[in-house]
This record gives sequence, structure tokens and C-alpha cells, in this order.
Amino acid sequence: MSAITLLTDFGTADGYVAEMKGVLMTQAPGSQVVDLSHDMPPHEIDAARLAVARYWRRFPPGTVHLVVVDPGVGSDRQAIAVASEERFLVGPDNGVLSPALLMPGSRVVSLPVPADAAPTFHGRDVFAPAAAALARGAGMESLGSPLEQPMIRRTPEAVKEDDGWLRGEVIVVDRFGNAVTNLLAIHGGEVRVGDREVPMRRTYADVASGEAVALVGSSGLIEIAVRDGSAAKTLGIARGSIIRIRDGH
Amino acid sequence: MSAITLLTDFGTADGYVAEMKGVLMTQAPGSQVVDLSHDMPPHEIDAARLAVARYWRRFPPGTVHLVVVDPGVGSDRQAIAVASEERFLVGPDNGVLSPALLMPGSRVVSLPVPADAAPTFHGRDVFAPAAAALARGAGMESLGSPLEQPMIRRTPEAVKEDDGWLRGEVIVVDRFGNAVTNLLAIHGGEVRVGDREVPMRRTYADVASGEAVALVGSSGLIEIAVRDGSAAKTLGIARGSIIRIRDGH
Amino acid sequence: MSAITLLTDFGTADGYVAEMKGVLMTQAPGSQVVDLSHDMPPHEIDAARLAVARYWRRFPPGTVHLVVVDPGVGSDRQAIAVASEERFLVGPDNGVLSPALLMPGSRVVSLPVPADAAPTFHGRDVFAPAAAALARGAGMESLGSPLEQPMIRRTPEAVKEDDGWLRGEVIVVDRFGNAVTNLLAIHGGEVRVGDREVPMRRTYADVASGEAVALVGSSGLIEIAVRDGSAAKTLGIARGSIIRIRDGH
Repeated sequence: MSAITLLTDFGTADGYVAEMKGVLMTQAPGSQVVDLSHDMPPHEIDAARLAVARYWRRFPPGTVHLVVVDPGVGSDRQAIAVASEERFLVGPDNGVLSPALLMPGSRVVSLPVPADAAPTFHGRDVFAPAAAALARGAGMESLGSPLEQPMIRRTPEAVKEDDGWLRGEVIVVDRFGNAVTNLLAIHGGEVRVGDREVPMRRTYADVASGEAVALVGSSGLIEIAVRDGSAAKTLGIARGSIIRIRDGH
Repeated sequence: MSAITLLTDFGTADGYVAEMKGVLMTQAPGSQVVDLSHDMPPHEIDAARLAVARYWRRFPPGTVHLVVVDPGVGSDRQAIAVASEERFLVGPDNGVLSPALLMPGSRVVSLPVPADAAPTFHGRDVFAPAAAALARGAGMESLGSPLEQPMIRRTPEAVKEDDGWLRGEVIVVDRFGNAVTNLLAIHGGEVRVGDREVPMRRTYADVASGEAVALVGSSGLIEIAVRDGSAAKTLGIARGSIIRIRDGH
Repeated sequence: MSAITLLTDFGTADGYVAEMKGVLMTQAPGSQVVDLSHDMPPHEIDAARLAVARYWRRFPPGTVHLVVVDPGVGSDRQAIAVASEERFLVGPDNGVLSPALLMPGSRVVSLPVPADAAPTFHGRDVFAPAAAALARGAGMESLGSPLEQPMIRRTPEAVKEDDGWLRGEVIVVDRFGNAVTNLLAIHGGEVRVGDREVPMRRTYADVASGEAVALVGSSGLIEIAVRDGSAAKTLGIARGSIIRIRDGH
């Protein structure tokens, strides 16, 4: 029996996640149900997509990832299951599963919505039953019909400017106030937050306490941090803030 | 070995839930311990009772539900275990387990409090050991003596007014700002929040973004929502706010 | 296969904990991964140390406790694994594991940091692999070299004053506003918060609603509480506030 992971924006206090777990444990007895987060920012598809990108392939082959950040529940958006790189993912067709959809060879089916499903809670009545079926070993084709063009959402790409600078942006600020950008790791070069130059170093400890630093973060993207502090607060940056780099050689 | 679910208002940062899990894993080795929530609003028995109502029967028969929202810990309130509809529940006798107690055929025992139990932490020293015993297959009668009149708390019922309107109220506001009422689903009819009429529809997507809507929620109760927004904020409603419905036929 | 518990200050929304769980489930298949908290106050080593003190020995022998509150990640602080009282602990050498290190017979090894480990995320690349290895049954000596002098952090001790009072302090305020002190349980005596005398009782219910009370908490330390309220708010106390006791006999 495969493990089933859960990522939602439901919080836990309302009992919605509890209901989903009841469905999973009833319909996939013996499977391990693993909380990843229920504190995703409500209705923020891109934040969930970036989290999924971090974790989906770190779990063992066969793992079923259930992802419910679903502002369009009850509308005509499709419900989907994805098979990609030996893992399965289940969630709404709103781009949140893009990291898996973008892999060559990924397969997608559209899940039928039962007539008695609550139109406001597909997590319980559509997604959890599909995840349980996959954990039990059901084939993708038994869950629904192939979907040709699932919705894809992408992180905006950095732009090369006329003056030679590469202009990127902050895509997420983490709990510690570190600002993750859409800029890939480079060696050497200058990093600017607005007009301020920030030294590029290997890790936080390479600058003094309270100082700003740019570094290559744990997912291979350039991050702006402040040692023992919050880059977001100290530098006044947030999601969407412009960060520029230029090759120093 | 049965699964044991946990619902508390302890948060997790103080280590209290960790201590309870240590007791459960020591005394019921091999059982699956499933977090439902530790973010219940502190000491709010009714919020926990409404969450329990949502989930307790969705888990497989034999599941043990541990529920610790217990403002009266150390007082003379009883500690109880309940057997109802093939599930078990353990918690304080303050009404939080009412959904299971109200079922015909439910059985209740009063749990003795060991002399060395911490008077401020029955979750660790009384409830967790009882839950572990039930998960191991212990009989109810081995845990304590029958309790004849456990405390029951109920959701207030809607009231029929002279002018033909049914007056209910908001019983919980969820993380998304949706206001769940004590009004059962009806077909047709008018819904009023204060003097404002709110259209009754099937789901959020049936109104424009930012518009208010009434719908039948996933537990069969009428909810007031605002599409892509918060009904609580937009309409200025909270727990206890009056919502009225009238049959339109 | 042993259970692995997790305590971090990562929150869950950024996906860091999810990545760690992927590593654990891949490298220690079949082990039970148990969340204790991801809501520890960021970078507060002492808060985590006090939580560890509460739970580490309540879990079954063989349990592996992974503790990542690690403001010095990427600096020259060591990464360590500890064997103590039949349990294992893995985390940074910053004092967070002191409760286990202080036990006679505890053993400590320094974990090597792989060249390809992210310098900002040892939780994923150093600590989780070590915890997985221990859960699989690996010997301590296979993980690293003995470390002679791991960092120890201690709770400050209460001080006997000339006038006969014992002066302690608040070491943690919990979610309910209860203030836990560094004063051990005494029988009889007076307790003062500033100039205010607070009655010493057995439990909250021994005073009227809204009244302050001192009691012996569930870890054997004196706590200051307000029944049905918050001692921190009502009495204006916080971590570091001075609490004094004097033997009444």
C-alpha cells in the first residue's frame, strides 16, 4: 500500500482535513497518510505549486500526492490525477500540479465528479477517493478519461536587460524572511536589490549578523537573506520585488 | 491495532502534544497516531464539538478518537470514554463528545484519575492511557464505571418567527471566512443576512467574484460565502450573527 | 524499523519539512514519521530545548528524535547524533539536545557534512539522512567520529537571596498564557509575582475564575496561571519575569 501525502490550504481547525483523512483511511486501509502542510496561504495556487516542486520527487516511487488548493471548486475547472516520474498526484486542474505535468511522459486523467459530491468540497468527495484508489493500486485509466491540455502555470522567467543585467523577482518569502528568487545559481557576479548591492556568498555565516547576503538556496535558486534576521523586513522586499544580477567576470 | 486520532487546543510548540504521542506510542505500540488538529481555539468546547461532528464517523470502525479541549481539567468534571457506532471516543465530560453521545446505543464510562496524574494535564495522564488501552482492544468495562448522564451540548435550533421567517444563526466561521449556520438545507426560498437578501445557489461559482451567496455546505447546513472573498469580512458577520430564511414557494 | 519524530521551527508552508519527510521515507522505508511540532519559535534554541526535555524519554526505546532549530546552519557548528537512555537524537550542536546530553552514559558523534549538502539546509541533507540511518539500525560509530565536548545549554538556576526568598524566573509562557518557572515544586510557602502574592494550590479549579494561582505543573516546575484566563496578560509577565518563593513553615 502506497503512502498518501496531503497539502492543503484548509488549516486544521474546521475539521475539513479530518474528514479527508477519514475518507483516506476508510478507502485505503493500511496506507500511510502523511501531512505535508495545511497552512498554505488560502487560494494561492503559485505558493502551493512552488512547494510541490520542492517535494514531489523526493518521496519514494508509488507515492500519491494529494494537493488541494482549489479556489475554483464547484466551477467548471476539471479535477485531475497525474502519473509522472513514478509518482501520482491528485488535485484541481488549476496549475498547482504543473511541476509534475511538465515532465516528459506524464499522463493526466480527468476525474468524474459524482452527482452526490458536495460542490464546495471536492477534497473530500472527489480528490481523496481518487488518491485512495491510486494508493490501492488502481490504474490511471480506471479513474477517468485522458485530459489533453491540463492547465500549466510557470514561474516567470528572468529577463535580460539592455544594460547587461538580468532582472528577476522574488517568488516566495519563507518563514524566516528569506526571499527566494527566480534567478538560477551563477558563480561570481553582482547582485542588486533595488540600488543596493548585496554580496554573493556561500551561506548566512559568511556575513556578519544583521548583514544582507545573496546565496544559492537549497533548491538551486538565488535567495536574499539577512543573517540572524529577516531579509523581507530589513530590505523591505516581498513577492514580486525586483532583484538583478550581472556577471562579474 | 486500531488508529488513534488526536484533536486538541494545545498548539504544538509547548511539547504537550509530543508528550501525549510518547504515551500513545509506548502504550499502544504499532497503532497509527493521526493528527486531526492542535489549532482548535483554546477552551472553545463548541468549536471542537462541531469539528468532532464532522469527522468522527468518517473513520473506520474501531478508530479511537482522542479529543482534549478541556478548560475544566483538574476540577470535578469527569473524564470519559464513549463507545458509539463502532467507534471509540475519549475526552472530558464537558459536552465536546456530544455528537457520539447522542446516538442511540452509545455507552459511556467514567475514567478513574490516578493519584499521580498531573491535575493540569489529563491529556497525558488520563486520556492518552485510556485511548491506548482501547486501541489495544481493551473493553469499555475495564476502563471505568458506567456514567449515566454525561454532559450534552447542542447547537441552538433555528426559531420559527410569527412573520413566517425561520431565524437561525452563524455557528462557525471557517478559515476562508465562510459562515456556517444552524439552518438545514432547503430548496428555494429567500435568505437574509440582516436586511440584505443573499441569493441561494449551488456553489460559489454561481455568482460573480466578490458577490455574496448562500449555499448548502458540505455538512448539509446553509452557509453564507463570498466568492473569492470572506463573507465574515465583507458582510460583517461572526459567530452568533442572525441569518433568516423563508420558503419562497 | 524505529519511529522518527520531527521537531523544527520551519513552519510547513515553505515545503522544507515536506522535503525532509521525502528523504526520511525514501531512506528509511517502513519507519513511522511522527510530527511533534514545526511551529517552534524561529531560531529560539531554548524553547526547543525545553520541549525536547518534556518528550524525549516518553517515546519507546529505539525512537529517533530529529530536532532542527538551527540558526547556525552552514557555520562551523557541528552536526551531531546522540545516543542516550536507549533513544537517539539528531540535530545541531547548539545546545538544543542538552536534555539527552546531560544524562550519564550518553554518547555523541559529529556528523560529516557531504560536499553536496546545501549549506542552508542541513535538515534535509545532513540530519534527515542520519536519522534515517539510525532508524534502519545503523550503529552510532558508522555515522561519525566521537565528539568530546558537545555544547550544553542549561536553564538558569534559581538564586537564594539574603532575605530568605528563592528568586526564579519564567522560562516559558505556553499557548494558554501559563507561565512556567525554573522553580521546583515545594510544599507550602508563599509565591510572589513582583509584589503580588499568588496562592499556591493544586490546580486551576482551586481558585475562582479570573484569579491567579501558583501550582506544580505537569513537568514538576512551579507555574503561574490565571483560571479561565492568561497569566501572561493578566499579570503582565513574560519569559524572564522574576518569580519568588519562600518556605512558609
